[in-house]
Amino acid sequence: MATNPKNYLKHISLDCVVFGFHDNQLKVLLRQTIQTKEWALPGGFVKYNESLEEAASRVLKERTGVDNIFLQQFHVFSKPGRNKANPFLSDMELEENKKTIKWFDRHFISVGFYALVDFLKVAPMPDSNSITCDWKPIIEVKTLIIDHLEILNKALDTLRLQLRYRPIGLKLMPKKFTMPELQKLYETILGEKLDRRNFQRKILSYKILNKLDERKTGHAYKSPYLYEFNIENYKKALDNGVKGTW
Amino acid sequence: MATNPKNYLKHISLDCVVFGFHDNQLKVLLRQTIQTKEWALPGGFVKYNESLEEAASRVLKERTGVDNIFLQQFHVFSKPGRNKANPFLSDMELEENKKTIKWFDRHFISVGFYALVDFLKVAPMPDSNSITCDWKPIIEVKTLIIDHLEILNKALDTLRLQLRYRPIGLKLMPKKFTMPELQKLYETILGEKLDRRNFQRKILSYKILNKLDERKTGHAYKSPYLYEFNIENYKKALDNGVKGTW
Repeated sequence: MATNPKNYLKHISLDCVVFGFHDNQLKVLLRQTIQTKEWALPGGFVKYNESLEEAASRVLKERTGVDNIFLQQFHVFSKPGRNKANPFLSDMELEENKKTIKWFDRHFISVGFYALVDFLKVAPMPDSNSITCDWKPIIEVKTLIIDHLEILNKALDTLRLQLRYRPIGLKLMPKKFTMPELQKLYETILGEKLDRRNFQRKILSYKILNKLDERKTGHAYKSPYLYEFNIENYKKALDNGVKGTW
Repeated sequence: MATNPKNYLKHISLDCVVFGFHDNQLKVLLRQTIQTKEWALPGGFVKYNESLEEAASRVLKERTGVDNIFLQQFHVFSKPGRNKANPFLSDMELEENKKTIKWFDRHFISVGFYALVDFLKVAPMPDSNSITCDWKPIIEVKTLIIDHLEILNKALDTLRLQLRYRPIGLKLMPKKFTMPELQKLYETILGEKLDRRNFQRKILSYKILNKLDERKTGHAYKSPYLYEFNIENYKKALDNGVKGTW
């Protein structure tokens, strides 16, 4: 990597957890490092005069070829020594007090970002630091470099908690969908079965759905109604949280 | 401040939003800076080989005299130029390439931490960088230095969202309390009135309360029942989120 470390803030890195929803499975975007052949989250560093959000978008584009993903920060990982085991993960070097030191052989805090995207809209493409970049089903991911498994798990916890107070699904569901299809999205993220009637009561109380005067065809017995998102209410709920009972 | 900047990570600061609940009011702990007389959140920097959480506890102790507050990170603030308007907020200086530069005249990202504490357990005490350190009612805080008002508001939003998925009140309520008293805590944090029956139904569904076979005395008409927290369930809910209807 011909990157000049002088352009970057020292001690700060980013890691991106990009979840994809496809075929009723939850997957995560990973890259395999050239240096150690291990799997890792796409990540990078922050330039001077860049916000973390700008840096995260740039990094994800550079590392994976994926553009315009809306990422949200969720936690900062700062345990001392967390990255020292792998100073060779970046080949950047620094001159400091006439000594050459490895850029990554330092105390780095890493800001975690996550996103939930439509798997089909993303064409992963490895950068020059990776052998490959690909989707992996969450349940198959057992080890990652440094503390990346901890970062992935924390992102997953955050996504699951978010289901309690933010709407989800606008870019993941087709324009018209049935209640069982939306329930399946929630179940996939939560990794558990939900009660059909409770789910329907709760999701309707959020007032983010329009029930259409139209049923899904192709069902022999009692075709289910179709719904669409009420975009205006959905966007309000993104800002203010879904309406619960308080 | 006789602090040596070599001990600290460059580019990273911390700000602490400590909310206090007292007398049915929500207050925030602020300090008045010696340099500009403006009000600010207590904040500071991160030492080498310190986690952010360790640094936040140390900083709060140094800046306010307040010990052992459990702080949680909630957001990182990184807009370029956010701190440049106030390079004199720290008098630390650095030698770099034979030039003397102000430590704080740089791109700093700040990690926000917040806590909700029992006002009575805290005795604020200013450090040498502050004229005073004191509680202010949230609704009276109109301006703060740099982007501290934005940090405060984001912390408040986070605290309010948290009411949807985490239990609250264990260290804020007396050991035995009535349902209206607990409702008042929620209303104070949310800044709005809640429906009595919905509140009771919801909070009981969380299974974090034990109803006692005991009523509050001193009420002429229909004394309300007393409750206590079910510590075991409360702690589980802290880890896993409260049980909602899914």
